[in-house]
Amino acid sequence: MGLPLHRVLGGTVTAARGARVLLPEMFSRIGGRSSTSSNRSIPLVFSFSHRRCLSKISVTSKVEMSINGVASQSKVLTIDTLNPSIKKVEYAVRGPIVLRAIEIEKELQEGVKKPFTEVIKANIGDAHAMGQTPITFLRQVIALCIYPELLKDNKFPEDAKKRARRILQACAGGSIGAYSASQGIECIRQDVAHYIERRDGGIPSDPGNIFLSTGASDAIVTILKLLMTGEGNTRTGVMIPIPQYPLYSAALAELNGVQVNYYLDEENCWALDVEELRRSLNAARQHCRPRALCIINPGNPTGQVQSKKCIEDVIRFAAEEKLLLLADEVYQDNIYAQGCKFHSFKKVLFEMGPEYSNTVELVSFHSTSKCYMGECGFRGGYMEVCNMDPEVKQQLIKLVSVRLCPPVPGQAMVDVISTPPVEGEPSYEQFVKEKNAVLASLGEKAHLTEDIFNTVPGIKCNPVQGAMYSFPRIEIPDKAVKEAKAKGLAPDMFYCITLLEETGICIVPGSGFGQREGTYHFRMTILPPVDKLKVLLKKLKEFHIKFTNKYS
Amino acid sequence: MGLPLHRVLGGTVTAARGARVLLPEMFSRIGGRSSTSSNRSIPLVFSFSHRRCLSKISVTSKVEMSINGVASQSKVLTIDTLNPSIKKVEYAVRGPIVLRAIEIEKELQEGVKKPFTEVIKANIGDAHAMGQTPITFLRQVIALCIYPELLKDNKFPEDAKKRARRILQACAGGSIGAYSASQGIECIRQDVAHYIERRDGGIPSDPGNIFLSTGASDAIVTILKLLMTGEGNTRTGVMIPIPQYPLYSAALAELNGVQVNYYLDEENCWALDVEELRRSLNAARQHCRPRALCIINPGNPTGQVQSKKCIEDVIRFAAEEKLLLLADEVYQDNIYAQGCKFHSFKKVLFEMGPEYSNTVELVSFHSTSKCYMGECGFRGGYMEVCNMDPEVKQQLIKLVSVRLCPPVPGQAMVDVISTPPVEGEPSYEQFVKEKNAVLASLGEKAHLTEDIFNTVPGIKCNPVQGAMYSFPRIEIPDKAVKEAKAKGLAPDMFYCITLLEETGICIVPGSGFGQREGTYHFRMTILPPVDKLKVLLKKLKEFHIKFTNKYS
Repeated sequence: MGLPLHRVLGGTVTAARGARVLLPEMFSRIGGRSSTSSNRSIPLVFSFSHRRCLSKISVTSKVEMSINGVASQSKVLTIDTLNPSIKKVEYAVRGPIVLRAIEIEKELQEGVKKPFTEVIKANIGDAHAMGQTPITFLRQVIALCIYPELLKDNKFPEDAKKRARRILQACAGGSIGAYSASQGIECIRQDVAHYIERRDGGIPSDPGNIFLSTGASDAIVTILKLLMTGEGNTRTGVMIPIPQYPLYSAALAELNGVQVNYYLDEENCWALDVEELRRSLNAARQHCRPRALCIINPGNPTGQVQSKKCIEDVIRFAAEEKLLLLADEVYQDNIYAQGCKFHSFKKVLFEMGPEYSNTVELVSFHSTSKCYMGECGFRGGYMEVCNMDPEVKQQLIKLVSVRLCPPVPGQAMVDVISTPPVEGEPSYEQFVKEKNAVLASLGEKAHLTEDIFNTVPGIKCNPVQGAMYSFPRIEIPDKAVKEAKAKGLAPDMFYCITLLEETGICIVPGSGFGQREGTYHFRMTILPPVDKLKVLLKKLKEFHIKFTNKYS
Repeated sequence: MGLPLHRVLGGTVTAARGARVLLPEMFSRIGGRSSTSSNRSIPLVFSFSHRRCLSKISVTSKVEMSINGVASQSKVLTIDTLNPSIKKVEYAVRGPIVLRAIEIEKELQEGVKKPFTEVIKANIGDAHAMGQTPITFLRQVIALCIYPELLKDNKFPEDAKKRARRILQACAGGSIGAYSASQGIECIRQDVAHYIERRDGGIPSDPGNIFLSTGASDAIVTILKLLMTGEGNTRTGVMIPIPQYPLYSAALAELNGVQVNYYLDEENCWALDVEELRRSLNAARQHCRPRALCIINPGNPTGQVQSKKCIEDVIRFAAEEKLLLLADEVYQDNIYAQGCKFHSFKKVLFEMGPEYSNTVELVSFHSTSKCYMGECGFRGGYMEVCNMDPEVKQQLIKLVSVRLCPPVPGQAMVDVISTPPVEGEPSYEQFVKEKNAVLASLGEKAHLTEDIFNTVPGIKCNPVQGAMYSFPRIEIPDKAVKEAKAKGLAPDMFYCITLLEETGICIVPGSGFGQREGTYHFRMTILPPVDKLKVLLKKLKEFHIKFTNKYS
């Protein structure tokens, strides 16, 4: 329960560093954020609501203090004078439950006794954190780019060196430490365009339409920014799936856009239904100007893989209703279910003929963070823009130039992924072996997860057709719902936080992604190693039965 | 003059890839953006205003076309429906003149005859692009982190391995490819705090107040976001120096904040004068709510280094007027002038006693891109927040979590810079030698630049006390001013674009940074190698004399 005083007080108190203060239980509480701060100075009296404030809104903390006899004065920047759009931002994947998980990890390190010995973080699609080994070839090329001295080293294969030389030649001054063009290094954009052409059966891709980015998130937010306009009933609306990946809701809150929800069909493996798109759009037109439609395929958090027919329907709908399409395709290699196949929006669009391929505005996103790579830390990504107005594209180039360039090691990572070893090259066999092993293991875990969840009464899990998550529906007894509400928590947040405190398993409540009123879910990654995943699923099963019994 | 057709048309035309079309001179023009697009379809008639549209506003292009008999329809996203804040964004450092420089490079490659054989880009503080060699130790550590197999390699020194091991141990799953905490890896924040403590003579720094970032730009924009509130006359104003680094004006335009200019004193080596701050603030209070004061020290583009006394005055002013301080200190190691010394705002603040150190809100920024490192491509950086309200800090943590984490190789770079080799370690001597060589060379070039410019009638250059740029004042004859205005260009843009076309030298006009009405300047980096810099300065001198004669 002890918190280091210097952590409580932030940077203002220094003499007390390392000292500890026990927070009396009366000063910590579960609930929403504390009331507006007064300017009173209360020497070493703490009103601290961080540790246990795990509502779905956000973690907040408040300290009123006086040190050395100098009263703290009112600040320029307080919760009341903060940008109101920032206050509305929520991001469950790294929200309060994850902060609590990190605290528990520290408590375990400090020797606090718990009913478990480690925290298992199944909250975020972070493959390497869950023990997935990096693909050798990718890392070799990047290491060569970083430290070109290694190009003389015989231990590095020639195909890795070839790629590193190509990248370095395209870097100003031959250094990966130079800024690149803001849109990304040109030869890498060429390689990405060729990669897309191979993926899409030869449909051409123009390097001029490729924008490298700092992960996919950066590119998504940039496009959303371009779209924002109007006020009141003329504000831009963006249609997003529910359940959604909360980057979308967070970015729309920050940018003061209108989030327009369309619901995926849980009864039908989370399929996208165009009639639901139409309902959602018509409803939204009463209060905003919907201008874009976002699709996540394969789905996050829902794991569905869209059929070609479904994508065609969506494209027709976007064309009819004049919506710009945002295709979030970062899980494009993560397909596990029999009969499922990834169809890129770009390919489907171009196969529908010039009526569509010359008109429908489409931006598709990809990343180095998912698929078989899992290279999240590099923050590599790109988007391809199709049918973007040339004047708008110039504005986009201008906008990205303000941030100078995406991280160049991440750009290099995008390049290697776009130009993997081909048959006959020295690294080919090892590369294919490593890649297939990752994808096969993910497939196994996708099936395992679905199978075990569906043996638990009160848990119902759709097939994990793709991506990296299960999003099972859970029944929460009325008594538990009431207790959660009494604590100011969403029922599934209460479920997840109880799970975390009792088992060390960290998952994210469905309320962080959106779900139909009265239904409850959680998102759990399929990333832990098979053995660990089995233990985790078993623990979750036992917890669910115990929780259900307790509140029945 | 030829442009590849696929580049002109963007992604919509594919069959024509590689084909070329000559743009008749009548369709290209110098000037502002073209008029509002109509929806008419004009088969293969181009109205293209990209190539030569080099006004200070932005480069725009416009294509109206019809292919395969399918008329292009009106788009969702056009220049008229774009977010109006984005249209206001300008960023001269990578603006139209730089795009033109890139085009000229391509033309040279294609064999087009020019009065010069290469483009010299002195527009951006990109040391490696100008031939500066990366510091060996930094790259060794990062390469070890990227490809830990190298930890077994005897060719890597033990101190580099030690740092790589420390970083990898702090990475989830031991991989730099895992996401880190959104605020940055904790042990790196600890190392940064220790670095700041050493720099500031022992004044404590709390790792909880350190936020790693994607270059300094990312951190600066994040803090500006927090500050934005109000409408009309209550909108947040942010005081920025004029001349400024245009990230500030660009971010304020995008965020709909009010740019409040205070002028640096050119007659007094670009010193900051508190009376000018007061004038600026009082004027601004008529139409907005100024809430923050930004200082760039050492100055960009102006190169001045602030005295301790000046910093104290600024802090007192901020305290009196209740302004949050933003201290952009990315050039903190780049000090060249005799008698000048870098004083961090943090240190000066804490030496002023608790009346200030417990109250004044200060955020200071640093980066891996400048100083002796020049590692721009890694997009590493951090900020330290002092006296930030704890509730606001929680909101800040929440906000950065939406983008997951700064690039981890960049974080690792921040770590190595914070823990350079110490005496007795195997890499110490080489590290110090390399570091000192870079800084000594920059110092030599700073003096050289000032000296040569001041031999030219009509050019007056303040001492380059620090940072990486000269910002000389130039006299532009009235006739040239008139010709520029007739072309719709700022006079110094006309000067710089003429210089580029005639000599291949790429510098940025003062109008991109701001300057007193009726004065003209340009920003030129001091980064080219000494020999090349001498040639560049000689060419510039000759150009200036010729230009002046032509228009006198």
